[in-house]
Amino acid sequence: MRKPDRLTPSDIKGAWAILPTPATPNASDWRERNTVDLDEAARVVEGLIDGGINGILSMGTLGEAATLTYDEKIAYMGALVDAARGRVPVFVGTTTLNTRDTIDLTLKAQDIGADGTMLGIPMWCAPSVDTAVQFYKDVTDGAPDMNYAIYANPEAFKFDFPRPFWAAVAEIPQVVTAKYIGVGPLMRDQSAIQGRIKLLPLDFEYYAAARMDDSIDAFWTSGAVCGPSVSVYLRDVIAEARATGDWSKAKAFQSQLAPTAAPLFPNGSFQEFSMYNIALEKERMNAAGWMNCGPVRPPYHLCPENYLAGARASGEMWAALHKELSSGKTPSWEVGL
Amino acid sequence: MRKPDRLTPSDIKGAWAILPTPATPNASDWRERNTVDLDEAARVVEGLIDGGINGILSMGTLGEAATLTYDEKIAYMGALVDAARGRVPVFVGTTTLNTRDTIDLTLKAQDIGADGTMLGIPMWCAPSVDTAVQFYKDVTDGAPDMNYAIYANPEAFKFDFPRPFWAAVAEIPQVVTAKYIGVGPLMRDQSAIQGRIKLLPLDFEYYAAARMDDSIDAFWTSGAVCGPSVSVYLRDVIAEARATGDWSKAKAFQSQLAPTAAPLFPNGSFQEFSMYNIALEKERMNAAGWMNCGPVRPPYHLCPENYLAGARASGEMWAALHKELSSGKTPSWEVGL
Amino acid sequence: MRKPDRLTPSDIKGAWAILPTPATPNASDWRERNTVDLDEAARVVEGLIDGGINGILSMGTLGEAATLTYDEKIAYMGALVDAARGRVPVFVGTTTLNTRDTIDLTLKAQDIGADGTMLGIPMWCAPSVDTAVQFYKDVTDGAPDMNYAIYANPEAFKFDFPRPFWAAVAEIPQVVTAKYIGVGPLMRDQSAIQGRIKLLPLDFEYYAAARMDDSIDAFWTSGAVCGPSVSVYLRDVIAEARATGDWSKAKAFQSQLAPTAAPLFPNGSFQEFSMYNIALEKERMNAAGWMNCGPVRPPYHLCPENYLAGARASGEMWAALHKELSSGKTPSWEVGL
Amino acid sequence: MRKPDRLTPSDIKGAWAILPTPATPNASDWRERNTVDLDEAARVVEGLIDGGINGILSMGTLGEAATLTYDEKIAYMGALVDAARGRVPVFVGTTTLNTRDTIDLTLKAQDIGADGTMLGIPMWCAPSVDTAVQFYKDVTDGAPDMNYAIYANPEAFKFDFPRPFWAAVAEIPQVVTAKYIGVGPLMRDQSAIQGRIKLLPLDFEYYAAARMDDSIDAFWTSGAVCGPSVSVYLRDVIAEARATGDWSKAKAFQSQLAPTAAPLFPNGSFQEFSMYNIALEKERMNAAGWMNCGPVRPPYHLCPENYLAGARASGEMWAALHKELSSGKTPSWEVGL
Repeated sequence: MRKPDRLTPSDIKGAWAILPTPATPNASDWRERNTVDLDEAARVVEGLIDGGINGILSMGTLGEAATLTYDEKIAYMGALVDAARGRVPVFVGTTTLNTRDTIDLTLKAQDIGADGTMLGIPMWCAPSVDTAVQFYKDVTDGAPDMNYAIYANPEAFKFDFPRPFWAAVAEIPQVVTAKYIGVGPLMRDQSAIQGRIKLLPLDFEYYAAARMDDSIDAFWTSGAVCGPSVSVYLRDVIAEARATGDWSKAKAFQSQLAPTAAPLFPNGSFQEFSMYNIALEKERMNAAGWMNCGPVRPPYHLCPENYLAGARASGEMWAALHKELSSGKTPSWEVGL
Repeated sequence: MRKPDRLTPSDIKGAWAILPTPATPNASDWRERNTVDLDEAARVVEGLIDGGINGILSMGTLGEAATLTYDEKIAYMGALVDAARGRVPVFVGTTTLNTRDTIDLTLKAQDIGADGTMLGIPMWCAPSVDTAVQFYKDVTDGAPDMNYAIYANPEAFKFDFPRPFWAAVAEIPQVVTAKYIGVGPLMRDQSAIQGRIKLLPLDFEYYAAARMDDSIDAFWTSGAVCGPSVSVYLRDVIAEARATGDWSKAKAFQSQLAPTAAPLFPNGSFQEFSMYNIALEKERMNAAGWMNCGPVRPPYHLCPENYLAGARASGEMWAALHKELSSGKTPSWEVGL
Repeated sequence: MRKPDRLTPSDIKGAWAILPTPATPNASDWRERNTVDLDEAARVVEGLIDGGINGILSMGTLGEAATLTYDEKIAYMGALVDAARGRVPVFVGTTTLNTRDTIDLTLKAQDIGADGTMLGIPMWCAPSVDTAVQFYKDVTDGAPDMNYAIYANPEAFKFDFPRPFWAAVAEIPQVVTAKYIGVGPLMRDQSAIQGRIKLLPLDFEYYAAARMDDSIDAFWTSGAVCGPSVSVYLRDVIAEARATGDWSKAKAFQSQLAPTAAPLFPNGSFQEFSMYNIALEKERMNAAGWMNCGPVRPPYHLCPENYLAGARASGEMWAALHKELSSGKTPSWEVGL
Repeated sequence: MRKPDRLTPSDIKGAWAILPTPATPNASDWRERNTVDLDEAARVVEGLIDGGINGILSMGTLGEAATLTYDEKIAYMGALVDAARGRVPVFVGTTTLNTRDTIDLTLKAQDIGADGTMLGIPMWCAPSVDTAVQFYKDVTDGAPDMNYAIYANPEAFKFDFPRPFWAAVAEIPQVVTAKYIGVGPLMRDQSAIQGRIKLLPLDFEYYAAARMDDSIDAFWTSGAVCGPSVSVYLRDVIAEARATGDWSKAKAFQSQLAPTAAPLFPNGSFQEFSMYNIALEKERMNAAGWMNCGPVRPPYHLCPENYLAGARASGEMWAALHKELSSGKTPSWEVGL
């Protein structure tokens, strides 16, 4: 079986795009069985790499890992790997309802050519810390050659990812990175992992996280498919601030970026967002116009229209930033700094 | 394809046993792929029917629907159907992470010979009421000849099963029953469904539910596999009270039964119980000695020892009642009534 | 100091009305300092006793114990005691932010002539079971001649009133009753208190509670001030059912009463109701027209209009039942039974 | 009536100490009515000012605002004002159960000589955003000459202090500062208030907050009474980093300070801490030895011993830092930088 290169935390840098799984126009219909738009998947991977993105994460919540059939997953993994051609690391998602199915799917993903898996915890029962840690130990034992990103989503996995969890999974060598959320506990968890996992904050939180902790130099960005130049600019403006010690441009940009997040979260609530995560993210992305995500697979295809309107507004705001950054002119927020 | 008989709410009566999926001794090891003890499954079904149980529910949370592989599920369904030989209705479980996989598995179960499915909601994202209702509509459209039990577990499915949900699913003809929990909202939900779904309270709550509402004449009982005579006596003592208007014997028995529940729930918490549901239930059942459940499949095989001790105590108390009821003597609580 | 008669659980029977504290028209203005409509208070007490109510509870959440000034409390206590003239027991409320203030206010209430206090727990910090139990021990030590009703409101007091709490406070002789909520844990808590506290369910839940447990023969009713004949009829129809063994009339009435509750609870949520408890209850009561509650004292005087509309609908439905019961004709739901 | 100087957000700088209310040895006994150790209060204020503290906050949760009697509050306010002698601003606390009592107590505090009040929201009912905002508007209308610190404790006040709340209270001129908690929503809330309120993060979070946002230059510190030189050093090391652009010393100190927080929070939980806030903080402070807090007033005087042990460890760790900083030698963490 093919073995991916062993990655280390220091290999994980910059802007890591999270992908939705592009869907054919009929994908909300439960009668369909072949709903992945593989051509769009290939086009998007090419565009992201061309735009400067550093890595790819896929098949998480918004990537519809829950609602793809097995055959669709296999086909999609192949499309991603083929499109990337080794230029950036490709992490697929192999979260299932149990340890054994996850190991089998992870081995399959490895054989297809994926570099890693962004892996969440079986979510039928809420796990204890012991259960969550043992799950990652068992899977990495069962598929030891893969690279692993902890997928730390508290709403999806009924788990608050406390400090003892991070301290324990940091001892698993295959765990190199984590899709992280929230800056509140960031310093607490950084002290637990002692550099053995590269935590990826959300793009909207990267400025705050980077200022809090100098070792945070990578982030995940679902916004990348709304226009990758925004994600890449964010990466670079933080790096420049670090190099020069002058954070004024980074701060000015953050004040442009932050307002695009607000309308994506209904009533400002992550819990409410989580109920409609896929529909909201796909609506945002389709509104931005850079990618064609298609519709949402069942049962998550229903969403209140006023929530969707917020998501569209978010996507359009991001697209405007992308357009400004792609124009070749000095961005408005840099003028006069 | 084979079609099961169409059931109606009035067909659902008496004591419906919920089964764990018996496991081979090595089943906690993620390396194993064939862990269902099919002989024990057949023996238990025979014993339950012989003991007077009215129906069988399986492959819910404690039935390890989350952690069985696809092949194990198919084999187990066949074993249950074969053992029951049409003497009582057999409901398997076909909950998955999405609508399409559930439809496919439900059709497969129908073809194998199951009478119905106890069906929960995809639980990666918390569903809205609209999403939950549409899910049941889509699945019953996709597999219209099956009978359906709503599997109403709020912790597993991130959903509180409010009144509008019940009002809506009551309009789906294939939905005939529901594994229900809690007597608090019982009357509210009974008024919503207007007799179109037979709600099954938990054995421990059957006395209270039956007194609250005269139309409640069935219940689910995971205790049945700790000794079915207890479940059957519960059914009969309530029926007798209804017929005579004298509830003293039923009340006396409830005061024997209720204390067996307490040690099963760590700190009296259903939420805490839900984290360790499978391990606790299997420990209880193994301690009772009537059935050999075997160990728990990963990742849910870890559980604090003091919680397990409570579960064992619960199982032993139930077993003592079973023994007394099987002895041929007048039970102690009936003496002097 | 005056000593009230020692009550026992068996003294607590029938319909116990919970009173709002009637307010003068300007009572939502923080500049006012004398906002209790003492004449309306006297009129309402007279009307309730005349209507057949068995006891009076006051100065809980909807009685605005939180927002009355000390002087207003003292004046209001006097008005209630004077109006009742010993014909039914009067429980005031002496919940404060701490043990010492509560003891002082309870002694004052005793001196004024109150028979008891409906007492909640200081709610700045969420109490542990030990803290909650010790609080009731200390207060009953400090004011040992009063009668006590545990005021078991989980939202107000950040406490879920678990079984060990009930087991412990049942050992305090002065604790004779409890304003209870929910039928879910009723049998669990009844077994904990062993008859030493008379639990009062809510009027809407009295039918269910009475059927679950034969010893439940009293309830609290905020609806009484929407028309006391409804509360009194509820009491009597349950008593009649108990005496005859024929519950058909009681059940028919419950199906009339239950729908009046639904619009009072925004989105069916007790938690949401609790945020606007006072405004919703007063709106309901004012809409029913039997009592003039006046406006809500600050800071709880703001409430969404659509929530208030539901409360008005609830009050009008109750008032219609009151009217039918006061008409002298056979109520519609009794016809044909 | 005396009027305090009008403060502006830019007047709030540096380390603001939060005080417990020192108690006489018998203060856990509900029979006592005069439990404030006024001499210790005066000594502590003198010591804090002498140690370099910039302002004083008092009579919040750990300051036992809930459990002091009215007379004790008045006496304690006088003692604080007299001891400070105008050298630093003194904020007392005037949180009560309602708008009117709070206004009256705030006017009284103003007359006694307090500069401001750290004011929480009435907590019997959970407030809506509208209710919370109107409360601050009404109180500042009723006592317009005082300075106000929003006391933003989500557990105490059943309120999550969302962005719209901050946007609204930022328009009240008398609101100059806020005792804030958590760095997660810090940037969101900073953008809402637009510089019109000086947010005070917790000492343990000051490093993170200061790096996230350059305008954060003040914090609250309950640790100050465990040894004020730690709080003052924290203030100064951040200021030095800002001036030089070299954060290495600040970061090295943060890695010393952070571990002292961990044992104070049982199981790492703020919710659990909040149940025993007073007992834990007083235990920490008494263990540190710089101040004699005395015991806890009822009903909050009970706390599990293993939680108290953690609090003592926290206090001893802080005291060790204080000792090292007071020794005149170069602190260990500065060596080799």
